[in-house]
Amino acid sequence: MIKITENKTILIKDAKILNGSINKGSILIENDKIKEVNPNISVNDTDKVINAENKIVLPGLINTHSHLAMTLLRGVGDDLKLDTWLNDYIWPKEAKLTDELCYIGSKLAIAEMIKTGTTCYNDMYFHMDQTAKATKETGIRGLISYGMIDLFDEEKKKKELNISKKLIKDYHNSSDGRLQVALGPHSPYTCSQELLEETVKLANKYNIKTHIHVAETQKEVDDLKKERNQTPFEYLNEIGILGENTIAAHGVWATDNDIQIIKKTKTSISHNPSSNMKLASGIAPIKEYLENGINVCIGTDGCASNNNLDMFKEMKLTTLLQKVHNYNPEVLTAQETLNMATINGAKALGINAGRIDENYKADLILVDNNTINMTPDNNSLSNIIYASIATNTDSVICNGEILLENKELTTINEKELMEDTEVIAKELQ
Amino acid sequence: MIKITENKTILIKDAKILNGSINKGSILIENDKIKEVNPNISVNDTDKVINAENKIVLPGLINTHSHLAMTLLRGVGDDLKLDTWLNDYIWPKEAKLTDELCYIGSKLAIAEMIKTGTTCYNDMYFHMDQTAKATKETGIRGLISYGMIDLFDEEKKKKELNISKKLIKDYHNSSDGRLQVALGPHSPYTCSQELLEETVKLANKYNIKTHIHVAETQKEVDDLKKERNQTPFEYLNEIGILGENTIAAHGVWATDNDIQIIKKTKTSISHNPSSNMKLASGIAPIKEYLENGINVCIGTDGCASNNNLDMFKEMKLTTLLQKVHNYNPEVLTAQETLNMATINGAKALGINAGRIDENYKADLILVDNNTINMTPDNNSLSNIIYASIATNTDSVICNGEILLENKELTTINEKELMEDTEVIAKELQ
Repeated sequence: MIKITENKTILIKDAKILNGSINKGSILIENDKIKEVNPNISVNDTDKVINAENKIVLPGLINTHSHLAMTLLRGVGDDLKLDTWLNDYIWPKEAKLTDELCYIGSKLAIAEMIKTGTTCYNDMYFHMDQTAKATKETGIRGLISYGMIDLFDEEKKKKELNISKKLIKDYHNSSDGRLQVALGPHSPYTCSQELLEETVKLANKYNIKTHIHVAETQKEVDDLKKERNQTPFEYLNEIGILGENTIAAHGVWATDNDIQIIKKTKTSISHNPSSNMKLASGIAPIKEYLENGINVCIGTDGCASNNNLDMFKEMKLTTLLQKVHNYNPEVLTAQETLNMATINGAKALGINAGRIDENYKADLILVDNNTINMTPDNNSLSNIIYASIATNTDSVICNGEILLENKELTTINEKELMEDTEVIAKELQ
Repeated sequence: MIKITENKTILIKDAKILNGSINKGSILIENDKIKEVNPNISVNDTDKVINAENKIVLPGLINTHSHLAMTLLRGVGDDLKLDTWLNDYIWPKEAKLTDELCYIGSKLAIAEMIKTGTTCYNDMYFHMDQTAKATKETGIRGLISYGMIDLFDEEKKKKELNISKKLIKDYHNSSDGRLQVALGPHSPYTCSQELLEETVKLANKYNIKTHIHVAETQKEVDDLKKERNQTPFEYLNEIGILGENTIAAHGVWATDNDIQIIKKTKTSISHNPSSNMKLASGIAPIKEYLENGINVCIGTDGCASNNNLDMFKEMKLTTLLQKVHNYNPEVLTAQETLNMATINGAKALGINAGRIDENYKADLILVDNNTINMTPDNNSLSNIIYASIATNTDSVICNGEILLENKELTTINEKELMEDTEVIAKELQ
């Protein structure tokens, strides 16, 4: 029997808990952490009791690569060649982005993520103080980085680094520890070697993460091979940017040697299947990464290349794509896939979450098990990966706070946000 | 101005209508058909007015390959080699199927389909009188076939054909024309040549459709090549089973010559991306089929290999998979993909549906456009294919009857059905 004193507590009763295995039990949350997980928990008093009789509880999903404010560009350029898409659609619109647009765009993304079971994101974009503001207000957990692009220009390089430094000072470790800041050199093909080298120094100085796009397209690899006779991973490794504090997004095109570099440096790979498929970038060697013990997690990428932020779709797609790509249905089991979207993501971002266990952060979601599309409940884990629909998410708890309850957002006025978005999105048209 | 007399009418007002282009307008339904589509419709009196101000209206989705009652086997065997899956999981459980199980399983499937925007299915399975019963009661449209498997046994062949003949007599063109019956020889590797030849005769005699699995796996093709030095499509063509009344499910492995055969015979291909990926069967040459003017539609396959009946997921997967497979993001636009799931499906099944236009069947769905995941509404068609979630489906009308209204099933008691399913599904464990 635990005696509750002044701490804020939530008791989730009688849920099916997915935690490596499937167990019926209860979860006691105290402040921002999970205090106890047991078949039965008796407490004198709790601030809140959630009856989870018909719910599956799993760790909150972790979206490890996104560009939140790109929700505003949802659907503006589909079915196009990459060059046309970037030059004629995305970049001209991104040039028009303002603080207000990025605030609304980030908030919209956060609303979508919470409603679809995501409790933590890893974002790289622009006007990141606005993403920080939206994160602070909405209660989600995030790792933000300003997307540095110097296009090999010395002046621009300094400017980009200064924006990053300011972001670190203003927001790193803020919002009750929910908000962290990383460095975000966009990619080896948009950043000078000097910018990448400065990134390494700053990351070491502040002991923070680095978030970078690597080997997304065949062209990126071919161009660098021509220019330097190195693959993007080889080049970044030489600079010293890879390591256990680095999240490399995409990693679609990796040679055997690249895989050994990723393994040796303990770099995390954020896999983005929808985006890689929609832009026709290619199919990442996830099976090979996992066989080499590499930490692989999952991301949605931005809404312009997905076009949503639905980690449930992304999980199903991750396993299905690897199965068909390898002509082997045994590749990537449901459990391995769920791990990628939870504990592996937490490891990549350096947060103590992604598992429902004592002393882990109270970041978890309740999925309604009483739905037609998850009936019968022959296997709850299978249902989550293969049969669920993201909107089966019933409740979301992040850092011990309830952000979604009975499918209703608690920290965001959904109707107002949609109205604001429709008005402001016109500025980008 | 139209004068309404005794006919049953529904007016859908001020919707965004997806019909090749995106137009704001109203739709008048009279009995089972669409009577008028216009920017403004003024009528004296209608039985029902639906204000669709914030809705996107599109043709009901058509699921052209399924095994409905397999909903009961959802999640019973994932991540397994095909042989293990069939021998140790699916077949032993299918041997236990009863009328009652197939009734509940079919009804569950229909509930899932209606809730996720499907108005018509094409099903091949067992105890099909039960699927007919569930279809009659629930108001959905369906083409049913008994899955004939004689395993090259003469007695079994006669039995299978008799079951099919009885099904045709009992149910073809029943339930106000919503229910049609097809012949369902399971596949070239489970049916004798004689059974396939008899199928051709019967299909001609009754002027009905034929539904058959073809070239799903590489092994199926290799085995037949070894045995007969023919591909499955070549073999079936020789027998005369291909043609515009035939729906070939899967068609994953097709040679250039096969593609010419399919084109020449005007056979429809039902593409099942989730199932082909999950079972690691392969990636169908959809781009090549379409370039040859072949009618390609979409199916979910059964719940044991998907594991849901969500045509929205299937649409997104269809286009994404072809883009990455062909390293070309221009392949399969949003409109082409929507066509596959609507008008192409209708053509394959021989029904006058799949378009929102005068004199077409009143089979259509209203999708809630006022949702976070479809905001902003930069492009409603793009949102439907790339950003929607199946449960954004707000209302479903089939044959002029409302089957889903404000996300609530009107012809099925959802709670009772889930309870019945959980009880009865235990019989299969």
